[in-house]
Amino acid sequence: MVFNVKKNVRFSHCDPAGIVFYPRYAELCNEVIEDWFRDALGVTFLTLQEEMRLTIPAVRLEIEFLVPSTYGDLLEFSLRVVEIGNSSVQLEIIAWHGEEQRVRIRLKSVMVSLDDLKPLRIDDDWRARLAPYMD
Amino acid sequence: MVFNVKKNVRFSHCDPAGIVFYPRYAELCNEVIEDWFRDALGVTFLTLQEEMRLTIPAVRLEIEFLVPSTYGDLLEFSLRVVEIGNSSVQLEIIAWHGEEQRVRIRLKSVMVSLDDLKPLRIDDDWRARLAPYMD
Amino acid sequence: MVFNVKKNVRFSHCDPAGIVFYPRYAELCNEVIEDWFRDALGVTFLTLQEEMRLTIPAVRLEIEFLVPSTYGDLLEFSLRVVEIGNSSVQLEIIAWHGEEQRVRIRLKSVMVSLDDLKPLRIDDDWRARLAPYMD
Amino acid sequence: MVFNVKKNVRFSHCDPAGIVFYPRYAELCNEVIEDWFRDALGVTFLTLQEEMRLTIPAVRLEIEFLVPSTYGDLLEFSLRVVEIGNSSVQLEIIAWHGEEQRVRIRLKSVMVSLDDLKPLRIDDDWRARLAPYMD
Repeated sequence: MVFNVKKNVRFSHCDPAGIVFYPRYAELCNEVIEDWFRDALGVTFLTLQEEMRLTIPAVRLEIEFLVPSTYGDLLEFSLRVVEIGNSSVQLEIIAWHGEEQRVRIRLKSVMVSLDDLKPLRIDDDWRARLAPYMD
Repeated sequence: MVFNVKKNVRFSHCDPAGIVFYPRYAELCNEVIEDWFRDALGVTFLTLQEEMRLTIPAVRLEIEFLVPSTYGDLLEFSLRVVEIGNSSVQLEIIAWHGEEQRVRIRLKSVMVSLDDLKPLRIDDDWRARLAPYMD
Repeated sequence: MVFNVKKNVRFSHCDPAGIVFYPRYAELCNEVIEDWFRDALGVTFLTLQEEMRLTIPAVRLEIEFLVPSTYGDLLEFSLRVVEIGNSSVQLEIIAWHGEEQRVRIRLKSVMVSLDDLKPLRIDDDWRARLAPYMD
Repeated sequence: MVFNVKKNVRFSHCDPAGIVFYPRYAELCNEVIEDWFRDALGVTFLTLQEEMRLTIPAVRLEIEFLVPSTYGDLLEFSLRVVEIGNSSVQLEIIAWHGEEQRVRIRLKSVMVSLDDLKPLRIDDDWRARLAPYMD
């Protein structure tokens, strides 16, 4: 299973060259994950942090910028889980414009306790939630 | 030669977990490069774009988030050139907090004409400017 | 007529106090106007700038922050035109959470030529587009 | 007394029209206040929040955009206290480019407890810190 969500490229995402300022893709990436948690995994970021006292900081981010985008472009982001480690998850997120890949992102995040920022083992409950989004 | 510049971690960089929201490091990375162009290479981004009609979009960004930072932290960023290709430059930027590496960034950018966004050969002038910052 | 659009409060909008960092409301305000132009006025920001060579910089912004919001909140923004001047437009944008007003914004923008940033008279065509959104 | 601090207009602050995207001034405004707290009032935002358990959310923000700025511009921000209320402080921040006023900001903030977000009386200690920056 793949999680898909559409995002408009905003005027605020673009720089004086008229194209998306590359750090904005990292923000969009986080939005996609936020949507995935809420709409697919059934856990909002607020529940994750305030009730479960968990957070998922990034440990490694790789972005390939393949084709520039400009404001007004409608991008479709597709997310899948690449790997589930002991306390880490690796995601692949691709931004599509029609059939064209615009941006390809790999993000490795770790599940940590919000109280001490120490890594936690991803338990069976979470594995069951994440597994359907692996190839 | 290495280019060094200090940056304050801002309240605006931090998220509800109280640590730097990872996309902000991509913005800080761009600030460091902007400072390097102005203060070390002697070409402001405005001159680069408005007079030289050049821009340097990212083609590949890799960030390793080693240790979290919070607002009030003073980070020292060090930049060096890792590789100069035909039309691309690869940079390494490390954010230090004292002796501790907090974030390690690799950025590959391409020099393109602002008029058609097509890659340009990095000429001898630019190579002479960039070379001192290679190992 | 009033233009309404829903926006999720994002993790990225919130600060270490766990509430929306106030500058993010100014960004959201711009998103609402971008949506209004595209979906209601029938002119995308890209068409406005690239084809019509117009832009609408802010000249005055007033924001009242009535009740704090946090990530996960779904806000409904309502936009109406308060005044159409010779070359300026004043908008009121209210962010609602259910029946509760969270934020109230007044924005005065001027229509300028992108080529010299000089104000332009708002012509009858534009007045006809804008008028339905006045009380 | 007036608190002054210089800020570079960044590439990341500017939009496809090549000028500062207006919400970025609200961010710069917050940076100026952060600098003022740390360098003039002797209380970092981290101390304010983590030790004193206080935060100062905005209740009202007014920005007049007088003259556009572009990346590479060096702005000098001057801050003074306009009014100290029971639990609120009103600040005026002006962004200067040489002798020219570019942006004029009025910000009213309230001191609240971080634990319940309820307003607190500004005590004599704080009044003594703030008073020198009133006219």
